[in-house]
This record gives sequence, C-alpha cells and structure tokens, in this order.
Amino acid sequence: MYYSQQARLAIYAQGEFGKGHSKTAEGVLRYAPNPVVAVIDGSECGKTVEQVTGIPSPAPIVGSVIDCLDYRPDALLIGTAWTGGHLPPEWRPEIITAIKSGLDIINGLHDFLSEDEEIAQVAASYRRKLLDVRRPPEHLAVASGQAAQVTAFTCLTVGSDCSVGKMTTSLELTRLALARGYSARFVATGQTGIMIAGEGIAIDRVIGDFMAGAAEKLVVEAGFAHDFVFVEGQGSLVHPGFSGVTLALLHGACPKTMILCHKVSKTCVGESSLPIPALPKLISVYQGSANLVRPASVVGISLNTAGLNDQQARQAVEAAEAETGLPATDPLRFGADNLFEAVLAFREKPA
Amino acid sequence: MYYSQQARLAIYAQGEFGKGHSKTAEGVLRYAPNPVVAVIDGSECGKTVEQVTGIPSPAPIVGSVIDCLDYRPDALLIGTAWTGGHLPPEWRPEIITAIKSGLDIINGLHDFLSEDEEIAQVAASYRRKLLDVRRPPEHLAVASGQAAQVTAFTCLTVGSDCSVGKMTTSLELTRLALARGYSARFVATGQTGIMIAGEGIAIDRVIGDFMAGAAEKLVVEAGFAHDFVFVEGQGSLVHPGFSGVTLALLHGACPKTMILCHKVSKTCVGESSLPIPALPKLISVYQGSANLVRPASVVGISLNTAGLNDQQARQAVEAAEAETGLPATDPLRFGADNLFEAVLAFREKPA
Repeated sequence: MYYSQQARLAIYAQGEFGKGHSKTAEGVLRYAPNPVVAVIDGSECGKTVEQVTGIPSPAPIVGSVIDCLDYRPDALLIGTAWTGGHLPPEWRPEIITAIKSGLDIINGLHDFLSEDEEIAQVAASYRRKLLDVRRPPEHLAVASGQAAQVTAFTCLTVGSDCSVGKMTTSLELTRLALARGYSARFVATGQTGIMIAGEGIAIDRVIGDFMAGAAEKLVVEAGFAHDFVFVEGQGSLVHPGFSGVTLALLHGACPKTMILCHKVSKTCVGESSLPIPALPKLISVYQGSANLVRPASVVGISLNTAGLNDQQARQAVEAAEAETGLPATDPLRFGADNLFEAVLAFREKPA
Repeated sequence: MYYSQQARLAIYAQGEFGKGHSKTAEGVLRYAPNPVVAVIDGSECGKTVEQVTGIPSPAPIVGSVIDCLDYRPDALLIGTAWTGGHLPPEWRPEIITAIKSGLDIINGLHDFLSEDEEIAQVAASYRRKLLDVRRPPEHLAVASGQAAQVTAFTCLTVGSDCSVGKMTTSLELTRLALARGYSARFVATGQTGIMIAGEGIAIDRVIGDFMAGAAEKLVVEAGFAHDFVFVEGQGSLVHPGFSGVTLALLHGACPKTMILCHKVSKTCVGESSLPIPALPKLISVYQGSANLVRPASVVGISLNTAGLNDQQARQAVEAAEAETGLPATDPLRFGADNLFEAVLAFREKPA
C-alpha cells in the first residue's frame, strides 16, 4: 500500500469539481476505501457532492485548503488533472499551505512534487510526505509475453477514447466477482486506480520500452493467486496522443477477454476532430491488435451514458446490443451483471 | 548537434562486434560523418572491419581501451546494447579507463552515465563529457495531430521486427533524395540514428504519454523546410515488448507513406516463438493502424538479406515483389532506387 487506507482525505478540485477534468476526485469519492472529509472547490462551495456529481458522499464542499482543516484531514489529494499532467502555478500556494498545515500530499500528476524544489523543501521542513503515485518502480523489464501464462481469467477494459469508463467498469466487475464468491483482483494502471487500489503502476508514466513490461509485471503478480484479474485500461487505440500506451498495455497484459467502453455523448476522439469509429469497427480494431500477440475477444460493451435520461440511456444500451450482438450496459446506472456473466461464460466456454 | 561531427571516435564493442548486438557500432561505421579511428573487440582483434562486418572502413580492431589510444580518439562510443539497454558491470572499468585517458563518452543505453555516481564523479574530475544520447528533451507535449499538416512528403520505415533495417532504409532514402537534388531530412528516433544525424529523440526512452508528441515535434520541426522527411522507424507492431513505441511513432509522425522492412532469415518475432506474419498481412496491419488516425500507404518493401548469397537475395526480393505487388530491394546490396521511385510516384499521384 502506498498510503494508509484509513487516512482522512481532503480532495483538491479547485474550479473543476464535477467538470471534465475531475475524474480523479470522482473516482476516489466513489471507490477509495479512505474517508473523504472535504472537497475543495470555491466555485461549488456550499453544494453537496451528490448535487454536483451524483455520488452520495457526505463530504462538504469548501472554498480553500484553510477551510478544509476544520474537518481534520490527514492528506490533501490532488483530484484534477489536465492533458499533459502538469502542475498549474495557481495550485502551488494552496499545496504549500496544506503542507504547512500538517497534511501529506497525494499527487497523480506527471509533475512529481518530490522533484519540485520549493515544495520538497517545505515538505522536508514540516516532515510531511509527498506521495507521487505516478512514479513508476525502478528496474522494469521489456515484456516477454509471460502474462499469457497466468492461471487467472484476465479481462482488460478498452475504450473508444480517454475518460469513458474503463477504470469504473474494471472496478465494478471486480466488485461483482467478489460478491459472487470468486477471488478477484483489480489491477490499477493509472493514477486514480492506484489511489483506489493502494498499489499499481501508472503505465503512461513508464518509459516507452518498458510499458508493456510494466503491464506484464502487474498481471503476473496478480494472476496466479486469483480466479479473475480485471485490468484497468488506458487511453484508446484511436487516440493519436495515447494509442501507444494502449497497445503496450494490451500486448503486455495479454488479456483473454476485453470489455469495450464508450461514452455515448462523445463523437470525436479527445479534443480532436477525428470521428470515433462505430462500435463494431472498434471491436475489430481491438481484437485485431490483440491477435497480433495473443487472441482476445471483446465480450461486452460498457456505456457511459452521462447526460442522458434513463429512457435515453436504456435506448443507447439496446442500440449498442443490436449493433454489436454483445451484452451492453451502463455499469453505474444499470449495474454490470450482464458484463460479468459474459466474462464468466467466455471463461467456461470449451476451447 | 549533440557533439562535434569532426570528433574522432573509438567504438566499444567488446565481445560483440559484428554479432547480433552491435548494430550501433555498425550504423555509426556506415553512416556517421565522424572519423572512426578504432573498434574495440578483443575477440576480433587483428581482423579488418570489412572482414567482420562487410563495411569498408580502415579502422583497426584492437583489444582494449588502452590499445585504442594509439589512434588518438576524442571519444569512446558505446557500440553495443542488450535488450533493456542496461550497462553490464564488466564495461565499467573500461569506461573509467577511457575517461581517465582523456576521452568523452558517447552512450546510447537506457542507463545514463551522467546518473551513474562513480562514472559521473570520474568524468567531473577529469573534465570529460558524458553524452547520453537517449536522454529525451524536457517539456514534451501530448501529440495533437499537427504532423499531418507539414508540407514535406513524409515517409516512415516500419518493420516485421526490431533490427531489420528501418534506420538503414531511411538513411539510404534520404541519401538518394539528396543525390537527386531534393531537399530531404533524415529524422532520427533512436540512439544510433541520433549518433549519425547529430540530433533527434530516442522515442523508446520517452514517457508513454509523450512518445507520440515527441515524434510529432521532430516531424513538425523538419517538415516545413524540406521536400522529403524520412522518419526512422522503431520496433514493430507485432513485437509484444515494443509495439506501443511503434504505434506512438506511427500516430505521432503521421507519415504519408511507409516502407515495410523485413529480415529474410527471421521467422519469429524477437527472441519469442511468435511467428512473423506474412508481408501482405503486415502491410494490412500497418495501413490499418495508420488509418485509425491518418491514412498512409506501404509503397515498398526493404529486405535485409544478411546471410544469403546474391542469388538467394535476388530470389527473396522477387518473391517479396510477387507476394505484395510492391517494389522490393535490399538497399545495402542492390540500392534503394526503386523504393525512392515508389515514394516519389506516390507523392506525385493525384489525390
């Protein structure tokens, strides 16, 4: 564990809570074992977390680091990130205030706080921890294909884009497997996943040559002790900025099955004007790419239906099922039972 | 330029010269502008470079760093690398001897000498430079697709595996374009290419999220000032360890054409038992992957026919042409004129 799962967290999401760039904040609120005692965002101050995000959490939303201290946090968790993962200069005084107020800092940005001269110096003086969860372990190796040998049944979430529900889907499938009495493990491959699971490797922070090796290491470590291993996917094969990370994870993890995740309201990749291909095309892209190293099948579709009403969401699910011939759902709205059944059925299918 | 192109080089290839892991040594001997004054390999001592590698170079092969000093080198260039790119402990005393003898060190390994405490200390005392050519620049960005906008006609070499001739093919095509009076630029994306070109970025050493952005940066910097840009490819989409690097380079560089490189004697990927797919399948894999972001066509086949006699090599070229319907050659044995013609024809084809 990189940090105590009992530690009380204040989540920093200044100006961003519930908007496009606060998926770390929301993931931690929804899934981390730690108590979240406050969320910091002056622009949503006074509202409830549920009003802003739909997540039923009793944490108050406050305006600043100073205001969160009333709720006795142990650590400030940086809950927002921009593409590129750099530290915006306006966060700096708030982080320093938090350290001086006795908080450790949990950071998932590409910019490591422990390598920031000013912040590192303050943390040393005040004896607070700077936890850079995206820092990869040393001595990673080039992948050798070992992940294909694990005894666990492995499932990787893949996506039509970034931020479409890959981590959420993997977590929900892990929860369902455990609830049914299987031994199951969520393998975190990104900063938010690591904050939730307490361990993992942020694949997108690993040096190119060792990305697949990092994925392989995670799957091999988990894969001989569990019935199921659900690997958190990253990026998308159709995203020009991140496709290399996605392919390294696919070829390093060697999953037996994949769940394809898609956000219904998105039509273009990232911020680009590249159209997101249709679901059947995406299935063939992922299966084709997996097959270059080790065959894997997409066995279900996980839709993020944010912004739709229940009826529209239900229609989107039915349309995805009709278009692909596979079970579909929005795990947060309708549960992921049918996706878990699909993984289970594939596992029990005679070879 | 990372170093003077007039500097006199001694190439360190102890126990490896002309064998599987000395492609840096051979690339520098064949293409770098620098004079190579000696090659160090005790196991080939006394032979000529041409006897060992076929490269017509007058450099003597000597047994140790001490022996190379007679030829007045300015720098020791580390000319071999193992998968993973780490520094073997037995090279350490030789590197230290070189520094103490007044040589700078040119190093393309993943392990940076400037971060090695002992070596860095000796270099500081003796005021010698440690040139870690694989060190990426700071402040790289996530790719945004800009490379598709350059005015140059861009061509990326892609491969059936690592070490099959991608750099060599890109260099030969650049040479031909220049010989015909075009403005052309070789874009180096790996350590040996950088040692030859004097600049570039080792994409496989870049952090996952920024690999495609690094490729984009290189192509954008070269692509508005030249008729042709030939981008050195890396790895292979069918190599489980390196496929992520390959896809990031493809999606970041946004080439208009590709040349597919293959070593005739290789049947399995890397050291694995994964069979290398047939050339038509590889063409469809690369074109399909490119098309996810920006269409690009494979317009020719570059074969590495090492180990074959001329007649066998000619047959292999003819077989590749028959199998793919594209021009093929071994650039080192038969020249790359037909590949350059194919790139030129594609450039002049009406859209």
